[in-house]
Amino acid sequence: MNKLKQLLSDLEPAIADIIAQPGSPRAVYEPISYILSLGGKRIRPAMVLAAYRLYKEEYSDEVIKLAQAVEMFHNFTLLHDDIMDNSPLRRGQETVHAKWDEATAILSGDLLQIEVYEKLAEVGNLEILKLFNAMARELCEGQMNDMQFEQTEEVTNPEYLNMIRQKTAVLLGFCLQAGAILGGAPSNDAQKLYDLGISIGLSFQLMDDYLDSFGETAKVGKRIGGDILEKKKTYLWNEMWNSLDAHAKDETMSLYTTHPEKEIIALVKSKMDETGAKYSTIQKAQEYSEKSSSKLQDLKSVGDKKYLEEIVEMLASRES
Amino acid sequence: MNKLKQLLSDLEPAIADIIAQPGSPRAVYEPISYILSLGGKRIRPAMVLAAYRLYKEEYSDEVIKLAQAVEMFHNFTLLHDDIMDNSPLRRGQETVHAKWDEATAILSGDLLQIEVYEKLAEVGNLEILKLFNAMARELCEGQMNDMQFEQTEEVTNPEYLNMIRQKTAVLLGFCLQAGAILGGAPSNDAQKLYDLGISIGLSFQLMDDYLDSFGETAKVGKRIGGDILEKKKTYLWNEMWNSLDAHAKDETMSLYTTHPEKEIIALVKSKMDETGAKYSTIQKAQEYSEKSSSKLQDLKSVGDKKYLEEIVEMLASRES
Repeated sequence: MNKLKQLLSDLEPAIADIIAQPGSPRAVYEPISYILSLGGKRIRPAMVLAAYRLYKEEYSDEVIKLAQAVEMFHNFTLLHDDIMDNSPLRRGQETVHAKWDEATAILSGDLLQIEVYEKLAEVGNLEILKLFNAMARELCEGQMNDMQFEQTEEVTNPEYLNMIRQKTAVLLGFCLQAGAILGGAPSNDAQKLYDLGISIGLSFQLMDDYLDSFGETAKVGKRIGGDILEKKKTYLWNEMWNSLDAHAKDETMSLYTTHPEKEIIALVKSKMDETGAKYSTIQKAQEYSEKSSSKLQDLKSVGDKKYLEEIVEMLASRES
Repeated sequence: MNKLKQLLSDLEPAIADIIAQPGSPRAVYEPISYILSLGGKRIRPAMVLAAYRLYKEEYSDEVIKLAQAVEMFHNFTLLHDDIMDNSPLRRGQETVHAKWDEATAILSGDLLQIEVYEKLAEVGNLEILKLFNAMARELCEGQMNDMQFEQTEEVTNPEYLNMIRQKTAVLLGFCLQAGAILGGAPSNDAQKLYDLGISIGLSFQLMDDYLDSFGETAKVGKRIGGDILEKKKTYLWNEMWNSLDAHAKDETMSLYTTHPEKEIIALVKSKMDETGAKYSTIQKAQEYSEKSSSKLQDLKSVGDKKYLEEIVEMLASRES
């Protein structure tokens, strides 16, 4: 993990810079500083740098600002999504609306979004600005689809995959594409890197869903089985559900009224295993992950591929 | 009002265009279409065109997109402010969060904000993008100041004037400045027009506060006296408050527990009149309005000043 570590170390001053948030009144800046300081893997800015380094070695000011912009934008989406989803915790800490209040969380999020565009204006590339806007629009559409799926009886796997593409993958696609553009990539390569980001994102989210049911609490850092208790219509759930006959579906539903939570989780997990849903979800995630690797091999970039290779490998083998 | 009418008629297709909001899922686009369709004076896009016409006659695609962007941005701030302020009504209709729900209102607002930046990217002028960002940042700071003032015992008039500058005036300043830049104004003129917009905005907001207490319901289109019942620390309120001795202050406060709302409003209004607060608020508004007019005379623009003159006059003499 030396290459990724190096990228993260390269990013340190840029991350410290966006956490600083001087400015007044403090009441609107402190929540921004707070959410940016909660950590996370910083995988998106690392992807910006990794894609840039496929073409150029020395960072420009612009690529650092782009890396800051994507990390800030990611945190903006978390901040507002947490209000919409009524989540009390984020990365083991209080969410902004829980620690302050909803009005503060809405407004701080809006300001953080404006700061994203300040960074993008400093990047000063209109093509990248337009790509960012198209991505951000899709992300909002994905969030609405996600919220609507909660009220929907049945969600198909193509619908689900499209939603996670919008909600997770397009931002990763943008990170690689825009980082590559700033590195001077030919437009053909930039588009391939976007597609690569989409594959990474889909694989990432499928593994995320898998780990929510089959991960280890100690590694994942949250309680296992949340999606099962919510009957969240993930790929994993759908694969199981579509393999059950009418009787088995009724039986599964009745578990929710007759059993304690721990047993519901255990019993649904065995159904996910028996029906092959567990296996086919891992397989699907691996399929996207392998697509990513082969796309990366195809690139005719002049720079160092090791950075992005390591990120792809890390995301493919993650247990948290 | 022929000149302003002409601007508003020039804007019609552009406004219809932003109301259309095709796109899917409908659940996130319909609220955007709804709030944009509620009307309002469309004064901000008209100001963009009026400033542009100081320098050029034929509209460019860019100036129309800029006009769309400011109207969309204004509605974005209304949409999110209404959630923060818990307002059930906007322009006599249900607010978005009341008609749908809070999550939908947050997300639709976020998407509307992204659409603003799509328009700005199409305008394609990085200087304007940066000016917009600086303005939007100030507007968020102003909204936070406004919310904090509600929890503050005493707000000074300079603090209040700064807050309304941030919350109302900077957007009007931006409209004139950016419209002028697209028209090809010398940077000296563009800065003067920004200052002119600030004066218009301050005058506008002071009159707004005045009309909230002394307007006529039929003309203003809302119940009179809301600010008084909330003890909102406007310029008008502060001017009264600072003229009262300790005894009169206690007496005023005790009204709120001993009298019905209608009488509280009437009694506080007579105090605003007796102390000269009513007069000095009108005077202050006129002072800013006269500044606007003289700034406009100073401009050495080549185009038609009549458009902007009419807007300045209209805002100065408004009763609603």
